Amino acid sequence: MLSVNSYFEDKVKSIGFEQNSNAISVGVMLPGNYTFGTNAAEKMTVVTGALEIKRTTDVDWVVFSSGESFSVEGNSSFDVKVSIETAYLCEYL
Amino acid sequence: MLSVNSYFEDKVKSIGFEQNSNAISVGVMLPGNYTFGTNAAEKMTVVTGALEIKRTTDVDWVVFSSGESFSVEGNSSFDVKVSIETAYLCEYL
Repeated sequence: MLSVNSYFEDKVKSIGFEQNSNAISVGVMLPGNYTFGTNAAEKMTVVTGALEIKRTTDVDWVVFSSGESFSVEGNSSFDVKVSIETAYLCEYL
Repeated sequence: MLSVNSYFEDKVKSIGFEQNSNAISVGVMLPGNYTFGTNAAEKMTVVTGALEIKRTTDVDWVVFSSGESFSVEGNSSFDVKVSIETAYLCEYL
């Protein structure tokens, strides 16, 4: 089953699904600043566009572009600055 | 703005957006067999999973896996066999 979720006044939307019992979602972020909380640890991959992120353990902001990935710890959060419409893949670890 | 579309009795869903005035969508296909029509020509990239496709000009079915892309002519169609949940990026050319 495919579940559509919407966040931040519809500026971020995602489609969640399972693949080989792994929870995954693909989504799109419109330009803006967001803070996402995590339950499970997750691996985020930028499909197209760019995400500038700062995790709770990061000193500086880091930019990830198309094809690049970053991981976020569980029970944590990360800030995201989005300056261009960006599609992402999120794999829950 | 993000537009969510649903096809084939909710077995395929996509999120459409614009990036630098280019129309793009990301979506997910659940296992099944589908035929998609095209208006504009499009480039499809498999984000995760696999799509077995046959365009009107193809003699044989061809499999595209994560990271691989294929193009489809405008005003055309292509058949897709999906055996594992698959996320894709569709760029309209």
